[in-house]
Amino acid sequence: MSLWTVFGSEVVGTGVLLLLGVGVVANVVLPGTYGNGANWLLINFGWGIGVFAGVYAGASSGAHLNPAVTLGLAVSGADEYAPGVPITLASSLVYVIAQMIGAFLGAVVAWLAYRRHYDAATEPVLGTFSTGPAIKSAPWNVVTEAVGTFVLIYIILRFGDTPGELGPLAVALLVVGIGASLGGPTGYAINPARDLGPRIAHAVLPIRGKGDSNWGYAWVPVVGPLIGAVLGGLLSRVPI
Amino acid sequence: MSLWTVFGSEVVGTGVLLLLGVGVVANVVLPGTYGNGANWLLINFGWGIGVFAGVYAGASSGAHLNPAVTLGLAVSGADEYAPGVPITLASSLVYVIAQMIGAFLGAVVAWLAYRRHYDAATEPVLGTFSTGPAIKSAPWNVVTEAVGTFVLIYIILRFGDTPGELGPLAVALLVVGIGASLGGPTGYAINPARDLGPRIAHAVLPIRGKGDSNWGYAWVPVVGPLIGAVLGGLLSRVPI
Amino acid sequence: MSLWTVFGSEVVGTGVLLLLGVGVVANVVLPGTYGNGANWLLINFGWGIGVFAGVYAGASSGAHLNPAVTLGLAVSGADEYAPGVPITLASSLVYVIAQMIGAFLGAVVAWLAYRRHYDAATEPVLGTFSTGPAIKSAPWNVVTEAVGTFVLIYIILRFGDTPGELGPLAVALLVVGIGASLGGPTGYAINPARDLGPRIAHAVLPIRGKGDSNWGYAWVPVVGPLIGAVLGGLLSRVPI
Amino acid sequence: MSLWTVFGSEVVGTGVLLLLGVGVVANVVLPGTYGNGANWLLINFGWGIGVFAGVYAGASSGAHLNPAVTLGLAVSGADEYAPGVPITLASSLVYVIAQMIGAFLGAVVAWLAYRRHYDAATEPVLGTFSTGPAIKSAPWNVVTEAVGTFVLIYIILRFGDTPGELGPLAVALLVVGIGASLGGPTGYAINPARDLGPRIAHAVLPIRGKGDSNWGYAWVPVVGPLIGAVLGGLLSRVPI
Repeated sequence: MSLWTVFGSEVVGTGVLLLLGVGVVANVVLPGTYGNGANWLLINFGWGIGVFAGVYAGASSGAHLNPAVTLGLAVSGADEYAPGVPITLASSLVYVIAQMIGAFLGAVVAWLAYRRHYDAATEPVLGTFSTGPAIKSAPWNVVTEAVGTFVLIYIILRFGDTPGELGPLAVALLVVGIGASLGGPTGYAINPARDLGPRIAHAVLPIRGKGDSNWGYAWVPVVGPLIGAVLGGLLSRVPI
Repeated sequence: MSLWTVFGSEVVGTGVLLLLGVGVVANVVLPGTYGNGANWLLINFGWGIGVFAGVYAGASSGAHLNPAVTLGLAVSGADEYAPGVPITLASSLVYVIAQMIGAFLGAVVAWLAYRRHYDAATEPVLGTFSTGPAIKSAPWNVVTEAVGTFVLIYIILRFGDTPGELGPLAVALLVVGIGASLGGPTGYAINPARDLGPRIAHAVLPIRGKGDSNWGYAWVPVVGPLIGAVLGGLLSRVPI
Repeated sequence: MSLWTVFGSEVVGTGVLLLLGVGVVANVVLPGTYGNGANWLLINFGWGIGVFAGVYAGASSGAHLNPAVTLGLAVSGADEYAPGVPITLASSLVYVIAQMIGAFLGAVVAWLAYRRHYDAATEPVLGTFSTGPAIKSAPWNVVTEAVGTFVLIYIILRFGDTPGELGPLAVALLVVGIGASLGGPTGYAINPARDLGPRIAHAVLPIRGKGDSNWGYAWVPVVGPLIGAVLGGLLSRVPI
Repeated sequence: MSLWTVFGSEVVGTGVLLLLGVGVVANVVLPGTYGNGANWLLINFGWGIGVFAGVYAGASSGAHLNPAVTLGLAVSGADEYAPGVPITLASSLVYVIAQMIGAFLGAVVAWLAYRRHYDAATEPVLGTFSTGPAIKSAPWNVVTEAVGTFVLIYIILRFGDTPGELGPLAVALLVVGIGASLGGPTGYAINPARDLGPRIAHAVLPIRGKGDSNWGYAWVPVVGPLIGAVLGGLLSRVPI
């Protein structure tokens, strides 16, 4: 498969993921929506089904949709990223850049879909784009993100050669569960692109009264997931 | 397959979809029901499982249940609408007319199932039949409906030849997710028949104190979904 | 297969269904439980997964678990109730009697599991055993039960020879959806045994301050589901 | 398969189960989390998906993850615990010890993930680690735990040779349903390791203001599940 296909597949897949993910938070948080004030489980389902849809959209490239998945696969000793895509520095960069672009674009489209509700917001709306800590504490926030991402990467790698149709559903359920169980302290980025792409969108979009983009926290949902990905990839090599 | 079979299959399938879909909104919105005041996720599940059941009911004709699906398939370059059903103007009209009739009938049966609660309602009940904007803004409401329908059509087309049993479940989950994530501003028609059929039912049924049928908005959940369907069908032709 | 096997299978399957079904309502309604006050969707999931578990428990006999399913199958023109079980008056009676006994026993065990919370109840507890109308109106309550059961029977029959593993999950999801969408007016018995068995249990168990068993309503969740079953069985014969 | 593999597989699988299970309760109960105050269904999904992920993590050893499953299998007349693992006293001990260690470790990691929220807690936090009765009554609490575990073990054994991919999903749904339906009185341990491992963690971890570990109740979620497991294993031998 050409790296152009990988690029397109990851842009579209990650874009769909972020469109549905940013959308569900906007639905719960922004004023006047039909889902305003709905509970955490709705958010978990929105992101979970975002992954589900994104996996179909990005199937050609193996639907990483997440730099932590790409890194975890590389560390795990896998032979290739997807059928016919070798694990090289070049292919890794294509994955990650495409994921960042897709995440940015997905957030932009979600913003368009909720445009009038963003206009009506009277509080900062960063929370619909990016994650933030419920209690600020950089080291422990990193721990939480690393633990959540570890579960994601390790279990995905243990799906192993589970073939067939439960595949996208299995990943979706896993993401619902990680959100329900480990999303409480940091809002579960568990994906550097999921956090950074929309944060850039927040920074550049002409959203009125949008508040600042909290760049001081931006490294946490990058570093934490990457640590978790390495741990998950390495542990997957232990034969049990 | 004869077009009569297509007609019957789409009437029944779309009827089941609207029966469960209008039903769940009635359950949440009408006074005195057991589900009164339940949250957005219940509505999302009701519509999602409405699609799930409708797909089984309308399996013979490929279970479009939605003019946007029919249009999206036509634009996508598919060979036929269902095994043995060529894509022609005549077959397209059969699909769309059957969907409209099914949607109308499904809404009527849901009204019968909730008859006493409609009698008890003291506020307009159009919201149980048709969609409406949370914040009125025709152009942005069109954008929201187009985005939601785009996701629906594009991902369905990417299911591609995914065979077998996850099929109806996959579509159901997708609709749950679109509702959770993109239903906030307009109530996610994402299907012209889903909105127009029940709106006609609302207009003609002898519901006491029913209020008006908001025909001024009726074009939005037709045009928006059709735009999204065309975009989804065309993008599905890009090979990634 | 012997009718003794059918009998045992339907008793156990229906027992598991009612144990989980009565249990979830007890959890939401009775004072002091962990699920007290939880929402309608929890009840829908409890019953849906009750069906899911019951289908495995009663797999040998085809897991009817419901006289309406037995009747619907008979009317549908099916060849047999389950592999090796002919459709006769005798076999029909075995199914229905076993379902009634199983439903009774399941409700009794649920009562034991929630024993201390029944003791603590200060309001009548019939609602944890049997269904009742949100707005009393015998003819319209019959309509609602008939519509809900029609959807159940018709869609199950349309699952047709869908083989394999989604089977129990498909029925479970269908029941979640019928509850969400059509359960608002009458609490969705959609199964005469589900209502009558526990009502008898309520009448005979030594529950303190239990109130009356509302026998005046007891015919509605029998007649309504049977009408819906006949309609579903007959419509399934129409070839679309 | 070597017993070392069994050991590692059960430690990791039970660890993942408890990490997600303790995590979801912490998310709902601890102050300041994003899921604070969410409802019972979120908890049911968290534990259900904990089982789902744990089954993949512990697949090599058959993913018992629960001494009640191990005991139920032994009583059921099964030939082996997992392919190549005979049912002996030694192998049984390896399963149970590994499950206890895994449950302890999973709870510790969940505590790390929610560290700052545990620090912020002003009430005892035992409820995030172990179960407790909503109404204290040792004999009836044992009954409730036995009933819930009976359903778990009996239905799992009836999954029988259901092959393939629904497997982990089926167990997950079953656990969601048991929680929804039978979790009201005791919080559904239905697994001695799930309760005892985290209780030990609670006792030894340096959690400030953690309150006591309620050892007086600790035998109930051990004895109840073991009774239910024996009943489930024996009843599974009755051929229906």
